Amino acid sequence: MDKKIIITIAREYGSGGREIGKKIADKLKIPFYDKELITMAAKESGFKQEMFEKNDEQVDYSNNYLTAIGYVLGSPIAGLTDISMNDELHQIQANVIRQLAEKGSCVIVGRCANYVLRNDPSLVSLFITGKTEDKILRVVNDYHTASLEDAEKLMEKTDKRRGNYYNYYTNQDWKDAQHYDLCVNSSVLGIDKTVDLICEFINLKA
Amino acid sequence: MDKKIIITIAREYGSGGREIGKKIADKLKIPFYDKELITMAAKESGFKQEMFEKNDEQVDYSNNYLTAIGYVLGSPIAGLTDISMNDELHQIQANVIRQLAEKGSCVIVGRCANYVLRNDPSLVSLFITGKTEDKILRVVNDYHTASLEDAEKLMEKTDKRRGNYYNYYTNQDWKDAQHYDLCVNSSVLGIDKTVDLICEFINLKA
Repeated sequence: MDKKIIITIAREYGSGGREIGKKIADKLKIPFYDKELITMAAKESGFKQEMFEKNDEQVDYSNNYLTAIGYVLGSPIAGLTDISMNDELHQIQANVIRQLAEKGSCVIVGRCANYVLRNDPSLVSLFITGKTEDKILRVVNDYHTASLEDAEKLMEKTDKRRGNYYNYYTNQDWKDAQHYDLCVNSSVLGIDKTVDLICEFINLKA
Repeated sequence: MDKKIIITIAREYGSGGREIGKKIADKLKIPFYDKELITMAAKESGFKQEMFEKNDEQVDYSNNYLTAIGYVLGSPIAGLTDISMNDELHQIQANVIRQLAEKGSCVIVGRCANYVLRNDPSLVSLFITGKTEDKILRVVNDYHTASLEDAEKLMEKTDKRRGNYYNYYTNQDWKDAQHYDLCVNSSVLGIDKTVDLICEFINLKA
C-alpha cells in the first residue's frame, strides 16, 4: 500500500472480526494488532501484562460507588480505585494505538481504536456483526466452549462488556452504525468474501 | 437479475440513501419504491392518500396517554385514537411491502421494510449514514432548506421521528448495525462509488 491506511475493527463476539482483520492485514501486507496491544502497553508503561489482561476491554463498575465514597470522605480509600486504574490503563493503550497509527498502515482490533483515531484522515473504521446462530457455532467450534448454552451466555456477556467499555470511554453506543465507515454482517458472505468486500471498499476509497 | 433480490434501505436524513437506492434499482433494472408505497397503500385500503402522508414514518405519541385513559374508562373516546390509526396505516403499508416482495426483485426505502421482510431469504438490508456536515449540505442544496441551522434542525427532527417509528414497530434500535446486512457511510466514497460497493456486495452474495 502506497497511501497510509489505518483499519480499525470493532466486532461482536463470535462474528469472526479478528479473523477478518488478520486476513485483511495479510492481503495488504500490513501489521495486525489485537492482543499484541496489551504486550506493547505493558512494555510501554512498566505495568505488569496481567493487569492489562485483567482489564482488557472492560470497565469494573463494582467499585465505582465505593471509590466515590472514598473521595467524598476526603481521600481515596486504598484498594478502591479500580476505575481510576481502568482509566490509566486505557490511556496507556490509547497512546500505544496513536503511536502505531503514526508509524504506518496497520489493522487494529477493538479497544475503542476507531474513537481514539477518529480525527485521523487515514482511518477506515469497521464494525463486524453476525447472525446469532453463526456466532454461537463459531464460539463452540473455534473457541472450544463446552456447550451451545455456555457459548450463548459467553457471547452475551462479552458483547455487554465490550459495549460498556466502549460507551464508558466514548459516550457513544458501540453498535450504532453512524460511528463507523462500514458495518458488515459476516454471515451474509462468509469470512473470505467479507474480506474481499472490505478490500474493495478500501480500494474505492484510495 | 435472475435470482430474486429484495433490497431495503434505511437511511439517515440527508445521507443520500434515497438517491443510492434509485441508482441501484436503475443499475439492476428493478422497480424502486419510496413515496410510491403511500400511493399504493392508499389505493389498496381505500383510505385517503393524505392520511398516509400525514403519518408517513412517524408515530403520534401525543394522544397515547389520552387514548389509554379512553380505554380505561371503558371505551375509546372519539378523536383520541391516533395511535390505533397509526397501527392500521402501518399494517396496510406492511402488507403492500410483503406483496411487492412476493412479486419480484425491487428496492424499498424506509418504512421498517427490513423488519417486515426479516424472514425473506432474498432480503438484502442496508442502512446508509453520512457525516453530519455532508448531510447538512445535502439538505440545504438538494432539499432547498433555507439555512444551515434550519437544515440541521430538520435533520435531527426527521431522524428522531424515523428512529421512533422504527423502534415503535420493531422494538429495535433503528441505528443498531446488527439489524442490517450492510451499513455504509456515504461520505467516505460518495454516492456513485457507494452504489458500486453495494452492487459488489449483492454480486458476492449471489
